[in-house]
Amino acid sequence: MEIDKLEHLLNQFKNGDADLTQTLATLKQLPFEDLGFAKVDHHRALRTGYPEVVFCQGKTHAQVEQIFQALEKHNHNILLTRAGPELFSRLWNLDNRLVYNEAGRTITLEKVPREKTGSVLVITAGTADIPVAEEAAVTASISGANVERIYDAGVAGIHRLLAHNAQIQNAHCIVAVAGMEGALPSVVGGLAPCPVIAVPTSVGYGSHLNGLAPLFTMLNSCAPNITVVNIDNGFGAGFSAAMINSKK
Amino acid sequence: MEIDKLEHLLNQFKNGDADLTQTLATLKQLPFEDLGFAKVDHHRALRTGYPEVVFCQGKTHAQVEQIFQALEKHNHNILLTRAGPELFSRLWNLDNRLVYNEAGRTITLEKVPREKTGSVLVITAGTADIPVAEEAAVTASISGANVERIYDAGVAGIHRLLAHNAQIQNAHCIVAVAGMEGALPSVVGGLAPCPVIAVPTSVGYGSHLNGLAPLFTMLNSCAPNITVVNIDNGFGAGFSAAMINSKK
Amino acid sequence: MEIDKLEHLLNQFKNGDADLTQTLATLKQLPFEDLGFAKVDHHRALRTGYPEVVFCQGKTHAQVEQIFQALEKHNHNILLTRAGPELFSRLWNLDNRLVYNEAGRTITLEKVPREKTGSVLVITAGTADIPVAEEAAVTASISGANVERIYDAGVAGIHRLLAHNAQIQNAHCIVAVAGMEGALPSVVGGLAPCPVIAVPTSVGYGSHLNGLAPLFTMLNSCAPNITVVNIDNGFGAGFSAAMINSKK
Amino acid sequence: MEIDKLEHLLNQFKNGDADLTQTLATLKQLPFEDLGFAKVDHHRALRTGYPEVVFCQGKTHAQVEQIFQALEKHNHNILLTRAGPELFSRLWNLDNRLVYNEAGRTITLEKVPREKTGSVLVITAGTADIPVAEEAAVTASISGANVERIYDAGVAGIHRLLAHNAQIQNAHCIVAVAGMEGALPSVVGGLAPCPVIAVPTSVGYGSHLNGLAPLFTMLNSCAPNITVVNIDNGFGAGFSAAMINSKK
Amino acid sequence: MEIDKLEHLLNQFKNGDADLTQTLATLKQLPFEDLGFAKVDHHRALRTGYPEVVFCQGKTHAQVEQIFQALEKHNHNILLTRAGPELFSRLWNLDNRLVYNEAGRTITLEKVPREKTGSVLVITAGTADIPVAEEAAVTASISGANVERIYDAGVAGIHRLLAHNAQIQNAHCIVAVAGMEGALPSVVGGLAPCPVIAVPTSVGYGSHLNGLAPLFTMLNSCAPNITVVNIDNGFGAGFSAAMINSKK
Amino acid sequence: MEIDKLEHLLNQFKNGDADLTQTLATLKQLPFEDLGFAKVDHHRALRTGYPEVVFCQGKTHAQVEQIFQALEKHNHNILLTRAGPELFSRLWNLDNRLVYNEAGRTITLEKVPREKTGSVLVITAGTADIPVAEEAAVTASISGANVERIYDAGVAGIHRLLAHNAQIQNAHCIVAVAGMEGALPSVVGGLAPCPVIAVPTSVGYGSHLNGLAPLFTMLNSCAPNITVVNIDNGFGAGFSAAMINSKK
Amino acid sequence: MEIDKLEHLLNQFKNGDADLTQTLATLKQLPFEDLGFAKVDHHRALRTGYPEVVFCQGKTHAQVEQIFQALEKHNHNILLTRAGPELFSRLWNLDNRLVYNEAGRTITLEKVPREKTGSVLVITAGTADIPVAEEAAVTASISGANVERIYDAGVAGIHRLLAHNAQIQNAHCIVAVAGMEGALPSVVGGLAPCPVIAVPTSVGYGSHLNGLAPLFTMLNSCAPNITVVNIDNGFGAGFSAAMINSKK
Amino acid sequence: MEIDKLEHLLNQFKNGDADLTQTLATLKQLPFEDLGFAKVDHHRALRTGYPEVVFCQGKTHAQVEQIFQALEKHNHNILLTRAGPELFSRLWNLDNRLVYNEAGRTITLEKVPREKTGSVLVITAGTADIPVAEEAAVTASISGANVERIYDAGVAGIHRLLAHNAQIQNAHCIVAVAGMEGALPSVVGGLAPCPVIAVPTSVGYGSHLNGLAPLFTMLNSCAPNITVVNIDNGFGAGFSAAMINSKK
Repeated sequence: MEIDKLEHLLNQFKNGDADLTQTLATLKQLPFEDLGFAKVDHHRALRTGYPEVVFCQGKTHAQVEQIFQALEKHNHNILLTRAGPELFSRLWNLDNRLVYNEAGRTITLEKVPREKTGSVLVITAGTADIPVAEEAAVTASISGANVERIYDAGVAGIHRLLAHNAQIQNAHCIVAVAGMEGALPSVVGGLAPCPVIAVPTSVGYGSHLNGLAPLFTMLNSCAPNITVVNIDNGFGAGFSAAMINSKK
Repeated sequence: MEIDKLEHLLNQFKNGDADLTQTLATLKQLPFEDLGFAKVDHHRALRTGYPEVVFCQGKTHAQVEQIFQALEKHNHNILLTRAGPELFSRLWNLDNRLVYNEAGRTITLEKVPREKTGSVLVITAGTADIPVAEEAAVTASISGANVERIYDAGVAGIHRLLAHNAQIQNAHCIVAVAGMEGALPSVVGGLAPCPVIAVPTSVGYGSHLNGLAPLFTMLNSCAPNITVVNIDNGFGAGFSAAMINSKK
Repeated sequence: MEIDKLEHLLNQFKNGDADLTQTLATLKQLPFEDLGFAKVDHHRALRTGYPEVVFCQGKTHAQVEQIFQALEKHNHNILLTRAGPELFSRLWNLDNRLVYNEAGRTITLEKVPREKTGSVLVITAGTADIPVAEEAAVTASISGANVERIYDAGVAGIHRLLAHNAQIQNAHCIVAVAGMEGALPSVVGGLAPCPVIAVPTSVGYGSHLNGLAPLFTMLNSCAPNITVVNIDNGFGAGFSAAMINSKK
Repeated sequence: MEIDKLEHLLNQFKNGDADLTQTLATLKQLPFEDLGFAKVDHHRALRTGYPEVVFCQGKTHAQVEQIFQALEKHNHNILLTRAGPELFSRLWNLDNRLVYNEAGRTITLEKVPREKTGSVLVITAGTADIPVAEEAAVTASISGANVERIYDAGVAGIHRLLAHNAQIQNAHCIVAVAGMEGALPSVVGGLAPCPVIAVPTSVGYGSHLNGLAPLFTMLNSCAPNITVVNIDNGFGAGFSAAMINSKK
Repeated sequence: MEIDKLEHLLNQFKNGDADLTQTLATLKQLPFEDLGFAKVDHHRALRTGYPEVVFCQGKTHAQVEQIFQALEKHNHNILLTRAGPELFSRLWNLDNRLVYNEAGRTITLEKVPREKTGSVLVITAGTADIPVAEEAAVTASISGANVERIYDAGVAGIHRLLAHNAQIQNAHCIVAVAGMEGALPSVVGGLAPCPVIAVPTSVGYGSHLNGLAPLFTMLNSCAPNITVVNIDNGFGAGFSAAMINSKK
Repeated sequence: MEIDKLEHLLNQFKNGDADLTQTLATLKQLPFEDLGFAKVDHHRALRTGYPEVVFCQGKTHAQVEQIFQALEKHNHNILLTRAGPELFSRLWNLDNRLVYNEAGRTITLEKVPREKTGSVLVITAGTADIPVAEEAAVTASISGANVERIYDAGVAGIHRLLAHNAQIQNAHCIVAVAGMEGALPSVVGGLAPCPVIAVPTSVGYGSHLNGLAPLFTMLNSCAPNITVVNIDNGFGAGFSAAMINSKK
Repeated sequence: MEIDKLEHLLNQFKNGDADLTQTLATLKQLPFEDLGFAKVDHHRALRTGYPEVVFCQGKTHAQVEQIFQALEKHNHNILLTRAGPELFSRLWNLDNRLVYNEAGRTITLEKVPREKTGSVLVITAGTADIPVAEEAAVTASISGANVERIYDAGVAGIHRLLAHNAQIQNAHCIVAVAGMEGALPSVVGGLAPCPVIAVPTSVGYGSHLNGLAPLFTMLNSCAPNITVVNIDNGFGAGFSAAMINSKK
Repeated sequence: MEIDKLEHLLNQFKNGDADLTQTLATLKQLPFEDLGFAKVDHHRALRTGYPEVVFCQGKTHAQVEQIFQALEKHNHNILLTRAGPELFSRLWNLDNRLVYNEAGRTITLEKVPREKTGSVLVITAGTADIPVAEEAAVTASISGANVERIYDAGVAGIHRLLAHNAQIQNAHCIVAVAGMEGALPSVVGGLAPCPVIAVPTSVGYGSHLNGLAPLFTMLNSCAPNITVVNIDNGFGAGFSAAMINSKK
């Protein structure tokens, strides 16, 4: 459409229907959102296989339903995060192809099945970190990654983690999820030959400060291949992991 | 060596020079550091092209010199970070192949020149962020990445950043370095089709809290493809970026 | 009353019913609250068109009702902020001229319609920031400003913001509302030729720290035309914006 | 220049030297920094009388000298902030029209004398807050405002402040600077019929937290006409105040 | 009782019923709680007229009832703080002399009416600070002080406070209660010729940090006659004020 | 089992059923969790008398029930912490040997009664600290320690603590539990000739910061024999105390 | 002067040179700074015996000298706090009646010797707290109090404190100074029958947070007779203590 | 001595030289520091072999010298911590038996050689943590423990730690010292069958917050046998470790 408008403008100038001054003035008014023209293409990621994402927290069920219906008209995969079971029921009545991950509180609609490639490995320190890990795993999967899971492998029982060394060596990207002291990514980072995305969780109490303690642990890690996302941000970790994985 | 020891042990058992009980007892004593045996291989990254790294901050010149001489005997590339000019002079007298990056305070010895691949793009918000950016750039380069630099492109003058959109679209991984409010990675993340590693810097004053302000900005970014490293940690960002870039 | 008392005092002196010493002594005792006398005139703003304001949070419905009835007797516009729907119902039964803004949780009674002038532009980064933005918008409007709104124009999709550049160029004062990383005001500040009031919101999670993260982002902004109000303080932003706007 | 390029492009198309496809492709490549074209005009403020500003902190004298010489070629006023006396000496040798404000650590070159209008009133709580206040005053002045100063009028001796009530009533914008407990802006805000910009300073000790204490005081002020800038940010306060003042 | 025991011991020794070694051994075993003996007399305050106090928060109704019944047997005044209306009903059924202060959430039993002396003045910045102020007022009163109250006299409307200057000049001790920015005590401290006890409250939002903001304001006050208690600690302020007042 | 596998492997090699290369390859694959082999024996503590522990907070009743049934099959003592009364009822229906400590919210099953030795003394500053203290006491007891309790002996009434000096002198390890200002361990540490484990609790309000205040108090104690655990971590304190006590 | 103006105004009215309306209008213009008129008398404390105080920190020697010379002309006692030895030398050359307290870094000039009354007891936990204690002691003394000192009586050796119980029982007001964990005031508060002013110091390291740890300890004290001043604020503590003491 | 005084008192009473009232009055005056009588025996630890300790930080060389000379007269071992080389030179001139540990900055005088028992194992994550570790090691040694050291065994290279498993299994108490992310104690705690004392160090940068990051990591550890001391508090860790070790 924008290209049409631009063609029309140029042809008007060529045909003499608009003079140089008029044409220049109009060109200057073309808005930035004219994506094809201005080359600000935020849909590039989307076109190469990433889903449309709705962050449901803080939105009413009615608002999410409305957004879903708008997205559903296009041929994209859809991922809804931070979605409770009641919201799922409501949306499932609209479209029974929707799939719910109860632990991760995600709803997915994979209209355009994408071949899964590479290997994103999601590891948690404890069982209470699983909801965040599942959000990461579902996100990475619908974004095109093969996903493997190792849960409850915290460093206070280091043998539990070391037993999975083979999986660690073979991963293209690892998502390491931990609450409490958040030491897991440091050990994983030392073992792994690939990038490790550390996710602190709000699992803990007292001086845990709702996740600030493991967040700071991870940011100060001695391992050089660790980067960190916000507390409980399984989605961001899964999305970045899939992007890294897809490069293999 | 360890393999030799293990072979010797097995042959002793086979030959009857040691009985089953003795052999089992000895096997149980084999240390974990026996890397070939226990499969804890932290040198995997190293063997695939990453340098040996020395973090000089907090070490005396004598200590760094000693470490350097030990490393220099092996056929690895070497990277020293947080190194002042006096330290460089001292080491350069030992080995005049050493190269100093004054802004980034890095010393490098690239004994095993590695073909540079892909594209790591390092962007800073201000000129005062350049030291951290150079640490990242040098690290990514010696780890095998082609590196491009865009400096002083902060979001308070958004056109400066948008002018470089083509480079952003072509990068395999971006390192976005910012002090002050740290908003750069959010805008870059929205434009870029690749992973963005955000590096907060300690450049600022007042409620900047020595870098905590941009750190929190980056962790809370709305863009899904952003991960974060510690304040001023150019090395970690450059290392992870090179790892991600190498997957292309 | 106070004026009466003062007249009486002066006349006593004139008539000789009080001598100079007595009169001076009495004058020295006159309380400060005698506003017309002491020239501490906090109603100056009010007289030039600003509403009486009631901050309802932490007050019982009965208390607000009592305050409202006291204010209602005077010929001022009235603004109640942080008011829930039940409170509105209760007050509406008293005076059905009251208008409720559900998103902004404001109740207004514009008894003295004021001509709207200038242009206050309220921009939000996300949809979840709208309640705070509406509080600002309603406040600015009842304080005499024309108000325009641009919602959901966060910097992670910079084209959404740039598309509205014309409105930004024409505003007399801009209120930029953002939770999460709070980067919006920095970009707006760089584009706008007018003062920008930044409002951090409590929308976010984890290291967002209930709004401290975007607050610090905004305080550290590189743009020189930005000032900041408290987290979620849409009222303060709208009030100051109207004051600035009125100077046009 | 860019306009020339654009004219040339359009004429090539009109003349048949380029076909539609070629012309569209070239148009899409035009960089955003083409300010006249893309309508991102960050120089708007500048053109209407604000100075070019250099924040000297963290820059070497050589860097500042280089920047100054670049700026000096254009016909703008120039303001250098956070500049020590040695830097001034160095620059003064280049251009003896430069003026130094020792307390405020500012250097100014007012090549295009601008008529001063309105009234920006700068008030400090203590004498130790004067450096920050002077930075604000110089900035507001070179940005076109008449500036008045009231120093050492903290609220623990409220009469000192009240004695200046007339000046407060007549100001177009007030900059209230305070360290220690930072209570000054609340009292000023209650008295003033104009916008008040609060500047916390790092003057204090103990639980003052290098200025966080007065910063939080100011953000939580009950007065509705107060907005806040970063700790010690006299420049930002002066710049915004001048912008507000200029609207009168 | 303890004195009896000690007399008995000494007389046994005098009479030869116990030798020196035995007597010394027994003396060494006498517990510290033997208050008359060891001179650790924490009841000194109590004996001079202060009430027994029960902090009800975090205790079950059954526990408070049991403590009350134990205290009720002695001839002391009793003060229960942080007590809800249901707890009052329950205790009132036991003893209908109990008096409830609903705003301050205190229950008092003044069995030993004490003559009120001096003057403790309790001032609040806002109406929402009244509960904390009432806790202070009731505590000071039952501890023997005449109490006066000035409520809703915050510094953003300084005339409201100055109108009460006479009361301020006559007080023996002032309790200044404020949430939001907590600036009230600084102004009061500057006016008052007596000690001022500042009480920050948890009334506020955003960067108020549940009362830390006004707490830090008060601790950093420039007025030399201000001391501070914990957030919402009306009891401590009232108790200390009564102690200071009693010295008059 | 693992030993069997290893014996089998060695015998295969001895018998010629596997050659050296094959045997070495298999040995390298043996997982780390092969505890007897790799000597990572996290069950050592368990075998010497400590219970299996389940931290119930954040787990559903169904999850805890499943874990309990798995643990119940082995001949260990079992401790469940942070368990509410409903969970106890549910588990008690499965096994009526379970014992509930309502204050400490612990469930215990002491299948292997262990002789209690030494003396762990648990002291609290206030009655509100008792839940944390009971968690410590139950943990220490089931871990094999004789436990004594002194409750409500805070330092603001120092005689209450000093009265128990004999018990303090005789303890092998002391657990000192305190909320509010957390000063108890400093005084106890000065009196006691044994290690003192300090436990801050979340009992308090205002600047107590949910336990950070007493936590920092304890970490900064002048007494050299104090170590600290997380806020409200009665379990960790009791476990460590039992370990220390068992060494006597 | 102001009184003259007022007399003149009244006489004009009496004489008919001004009518009622004019006189009222003029009266309304009288500024607040007319101290005798408006009864804002901040010198009340001063007139009753407190010194003029100069806080030297952050002032140049020249500035302090200038202030001193201005104050020296009046018949007041003078106290300079936070004054280094060089500053003392400089001022002593001007007036050799000046007295320096090296530990407390105070300079005093007691021109109007005041009879010392009552008893202010200054106690420190450690020797490193003495500078703050001396600032308090000198301030209390020059403000009219008898001062006693007990130094190095921290609670980790409780007998050191208890040995001074008699002094504690006889004090009119106690200043308790402590760094590290800051537990001293809690114990003193429990022993003392008078108000206790707690002063946290910046003596400590690590999680001491430059005095925030003992500050929070003191604010959370269980003793009801404790109020707190800012970290290292010996002056404020001494001033308030003298005020309380003077009431005896 | 005190016993003599007490005997004398009792005999006076027995002999009739003092009556009952007088004797009781005198008994009540006996100070608490009368250690033999009141059983507050803070020297108990000392008598059983612990050294006298001087914390030199914040004391002048003259003060330390004075303290040393006082202590040197008694037959105790002496430990001076946080002592620089110049202080050592000064003291060594007084007594050349003094021994200096340069890394740990400790000075020791072991006048009463004590047999070393048990095993305290001191482990560090990095080489920069060695000064804190040495302070712990020297303290534990002079307090009677055999001390072993494992340095530079951080968890990012887990095999380095696991190689020392045998030492870990045999220790009576472990001191685990770590800066950066502070994850070491969690892994050690999971491996060790004995109490682990975790020491965070101030080694790190950025969000490390001068040691708060590893401090919180350690407090939140999942391992149940970990207790924590203040940042850089090697002395406290070594002292407590020796106490625990001595119980073996």
